[in-house]
Amino acid sequence: MSEVIARELASHIVDAKLPAGSVLPTEKEMIESFDVGRSTIREALRLLETRNVITLRPGPGGGPVVRRPRPEDLSEALSLILQFEDASLDDVMQARRALEPTIARLAATRITEADLDLMERTVRVVLESPDPEVFQEQNRIFHSTLSRAACSVVLQVFVESLGSVADGIAGGVTYSPRRYVAAAHAHTRIIEALRANDADCAEQLMRNHLDEADGYWHKKHRDLVSRPVLWRR
Amino acid sequence: MSEVIARELASHIVDAKLPAGSVLPTEKEMIESFDVGRSTIREALRLLETRNVITLRPGPGGGPVVRRPRPEDLSEALSLILQFEDASLDDVMQARRALEPTIARLAATRITEADLDLMERTVRVVLESPDPEVFQEQNRIFHSTLSRAACSVVLQVFVESLGSVADGIAGGVTYSPRRYVAAAHAHTRIIEALRANDADCAEQLMRNHLDEADGYWHKKHRDLVSRPVLWRR
Repeated sequence: MSEVIARELASHIVDAKLPAGSVLPTEKEMIESFDVGRSTIREALRLLETRNVITLRPGPGGGPVVRRPRPEDLSEALSLILQFEDASLDDVMQARRALEPTIARLAATRITEADLDLMERTVRVVLESPDPEVFQEQNRIFHSTLSRAACSVVLQVFVESLGSVADGIAGGVTYSPRRYVAAAHAHTRIIEALRANDADCAEQLMRNHLDEADGYWHKKHRDLVSRPVLWRR
Repeated sequence: MSEVIARELASHIVDAKLPAGSVLPTEKEMIESFDVGRSTIREALRLLETRNVITLRPGPGGGPVVRRPRPEDLSEALSLILQFEDASLDDVMQARRALEPTIARLAATRITEADLDLMERTVRVVLESPDPEVFQEQNRIFHSTLSRAACSVVLQVFVESLGSVADGIAGGVTYSPRRYVAAAHAHTRIIEALRANDADCAEQLMRNHLDEADGYWHKKHRDLVSRPVLWRR
């Protein structure tokens, strides 16, 4: 019963397009409107809280507030399953290498001028200061703009959770400025293919880019690629 | 603190390779060994329960038992996020069409004779009795064997959760025997390409197979493809 109520509340939030921060009826009001006991409502709210649908503000004047699960939330569930499947960073990178070329292919015919400009900006910023922190941030923007531009919410959710799992393992690793410049040039070539709406070329260039990075990691950071995925919250 | 303990317990289960059903120390024993209060242990165990790492057997003689999160568990988190992103079955199918050809490509050089035999058997069974229930079951075995054969635990987890989300929406839909026979023949061609270790061909045949199915659905089941994804537990 608490599951049924949890699902109804989730559907209500989606259907009414309630934004994060919206205050929901109190526990007491829900007991009346659903005509069930306090423990059932509590269980439903707790379930929604563990699934990041709501937060429960404690104390007097507190109560359920909409949070809405976010695409990033998938990385928690993913990292947990991958830890139990003994997966390594290598497995995560392999999946990225399978997904991102397809995303580049889809984006090639769907991307907007605004997104292309945004991606070009990331390249300029990296070339101006090719250091680890700048690269990490701009690289993230480059890839997330591309994944949004593919207009496939599912692939976007997948590839972003892979990115976040990978960052959790390899986030602190730094490279030489030369490698950041090389990556920026690879990004430029991908942007050119996208701008020309050349799906084959964008796919192939993204594949080359990731294969190159993968080869480098396997040669220079063997320890890193074999690191296990751990559950991250 | 309860999160730290939850993570330690999860890592312990993985590292000690405890199978599902293993009995864990009692709440009382954990309070002693972790040297923390009862409420902290309770919170840690409850968190692990919501993430399917353990089950909590109620009553006297009860307590925490290993469950282990399974790849299928990702579909819960995925379906919840997709409901909040207003995704439809069409979005799910689009992602499958992106992933499965890549999986067929990877499997072409990695698949074993045993898996190929298993996949061939599914085709024979469908051709012997091309009815909805038989097809649904054999089709599931065909695709899950293939995704396992790709030796990419991440892609396997992704594509299986897409399959389970799709089944949740379209599971009850039936087709004519003629369509099941046609699907079986498409499967045979894919198996032949896999047996020849022809990655390009396997990828292309899988793409054709899914494009064909997609075209049919858009023509004959418009209502179905636009159905929203709902949170499923």
